[in-house]
Amino acid sequence: MKNVVIVGATGAVGVEMINCLKALNFPVGKLRLVASEKSLGKIIKTPFGDVACEVISDKVFEESDVALFSAGSDISKEWRDRVVKAGCLMVDNSSAFRYEKDVPLVIPGVNSEAAKNNPGVIANPNCTTAIAAMALWPIYKKFGLKKVIVSTYQATSGAGAKGMKELVDQTRAVFEGNNLGAKGIEELLDPEHVKVKAGSEAAPKFFVHQIAFNIIPHIDKFQDNGYTKEEMKVAWETRKIFGDEEIACSCTAVRIPTLRAHSESIVIETRDPVTVEGAREVLSNAPGVDLVDDVSKNLYPMPINAAGKFNVEVGRIRQSLIFGDHGLELFVSGDQLLRGAALNAVEIAMLFV
Amino acid sequence: MKNVVIVGATGAVGVEMINCLKALNFPVGKLRLVASEKSLGKIIKTPFGDVACEVISDKVFEESDVALFSAGSDISKEWRDRVVKAGCLMVDNSSAFRYEKDVPLVIPGVNSEAAKNNPGVIANPNCTTAIAAMALWPIYKKFGLKKVIVSTYQATSGAGAKGMKELVDQTRAVFEGNNLGAKGIEELLDPEHVKVKAGSEAAPKFFVHQIAFNIIPHIDKFQDNGYTKEEMKVAWETRKIFGDEEIACSCTAVRIPTLRAHSESIVIETRDPVTVEGAREVLSNAPGVDLVDDVSKNLYPMPINAAGKFNVEVGRIRQSLIFGDHGLELFVSGDQLLRGAALNAVEIAMLFV
Repeated sequence: MKNVVIVGATGAVGVEMINCLKALNFPVGKLRLVASEKSLGKIIKTPFGDVACEVISDKVFEESDVALFSAGSDISKEWRDRVVKAGCLMVDNSSAFRYEKDVPLVIPGVNSEAAKNNPGVIANPNCTTAIAAMALWPIYKKFGLKKVIVSTYQATSGAGAKGMKELVDQTRAVFEGNNLGAKGIEELLDPEHVKVKAGSEAAPKFFVHQIAFNIIPHIDKFQDNGYTKEEMKVAWETRKIFGDEEIACSCTAVRIPTLRAHSESIVIETRDPVTVEGAREVLSNAPGVDLVDDVSKNLYPMPINAAGKFNVEVGRIRQSLIFGDHGLELFVSGDQLLRGAALNAVEIAMLFV
Repeated sequence: MKNVVIVGATGAVGVEMINCLKALNFPVGKLRLVASEKSLGKIIKTPFGDVACEVISDKVFEESDVALFSAGSDISKEWRDRVVKAGCLMVDNSSAFRYEKDVPLVIPGVNSEAAKNNPGVIANPNCTTAIAAMALWPIYKKFGLKKVIVSTYQATSGAGAKGMKELVDQTRAVFEGNNLGAKGIEELLDPEHVKVKAGSEAAPKFFVHQIAFNIIPHIDKFQDNGYTKEEMKVAWETRKIFGDEEIACSCTAVRIPTLRAHSESIVIETRDPVTVEGAREVLSNAPGVDLVDDVSKNLYPMPINAAGKFNVEVGRIRQSLIFGDHGLELFVSGDQLLRGAALNAVEIAMLFV
């Protein structure tokens, strides 16, 4: 049995970490839930019994074997040395250590081996990267990858529970405040009618702009090269996880008004010739992947189906009109709270059971 | 003065055609509005006076100089010969004739010249194509284009007023039927909670799947090569409009839960070296384009701002991580009812005033 502590237990990812520990039959000894001071003493019902939230402390880590961190980069950075010193394995969902050379960045089933040689910390990849990697890794192994071009459709839960709440509250405000849809087509056509009123309670707080009935091509901070950090993560992390610095990778990351599960439109150039059938064959046998690709039955990946699923849906596979017989185009949908965060973190911990 | 008839006058595009005739100061003589039988006699208030809807007839075209068609391919095909025979110029918003060699496919300002030599019919391009073309044409002229890779974020109004209504009704059903957002985070995380109940009034009718809180990577019919017709239109039409069969072009077309204005993530390889500054310079002087590209101020194209605007917003311009100094990545948002349909059609008609 392993004593486990979840840091950030009341967040969207934290809640799913508890569920994943159960679903994967992780041998949980004592489960501890760390949250901010305002949740101190709050009782959380878990499959491992009721657990009272506590605040972070050295003692928590001294008495735990594994710490699953999902409380942001600052807290991860602040506590890393003390967690390691306490002899507790840190699995970190933030981007704090992902790009340190000696910190493994791991997707179990893709580069599990990399987890072995670690400095007491293992990093969990960015959600968009992890979801794409599930589809790309089987293709990479068989056909090689030269170029990866990604455009994302990212749910509000990628920004945590606050993101989901902002979408829901804003959408409700547009309906109730503006009475959307009560009149005819002229009203639906009026661009002002879907705007949240400035100064209203539903005005953007968490996202930079209104997200209800809108999309925002801006996730995480802008870098000097004009890409956002979210976009660069896909390039940096794909190369590190695949152990191949030669892969050219670019991304446009866009927030959309959905609650859960990210989707990605992906165009690839392969090293070797590839066919749609060849790709379907390797993907249909790949762990963590559901091939959902029968357009004659209108079957393709969609967030509404991928939400809550461990596996990443892959479909719309077709020969690339850009890269010909050395390329494919595909569409993926995956639950970023699971494959992109909680599931992946618990799977990393499972490597040490 | 020109007598104008709008066929499909009560649809989303038809309504905007009336607005565009006024906004462009089109010298409207008599305006006639053709709709289906169920709208017969319905009085529409227009800037040119109240007009009673009528059903389609030869007489309508005999008494008109220009017919703006936006009632679907079948009606366009059925009436083409009779409209031409009546000596009325047909500007057709459907895809019925776009790929006929002798029918010009025109975006005024891009290939206006092509309109001159026509067989009585001029085709209006697909909305996604037209919006992308506004951004790509100035770049093409200066730097050339070898590859164009597009992923779209298409509003429900691309499917007409019925599409908008389905999104609004479904979203309302999720809120009211499921009482979404009334409880805490566990409820928001529950994937079942955002699903429209099967058999309910809000179940998908017009779109193949639920569109509220979902996205659907399927617009128009699937072709033998696995691409949808919507996706192939971007490839076929870009080459025809630019008059360059050498441009490799691919698209992934995705319906998203917004009401109005399409967005597109575009990666290009250019013939000549290109810089971000070089692209900004040609785009800032391009007609029909608003350069919205200052990430330091969180300014980039978004549908909520592009909706209702004639100009297409272009931004997020950055050197491509895939094609290096011969490539760019960019993001565009444009009103598909205007640039992608009504505005473009009225601008075509203006070429003959």
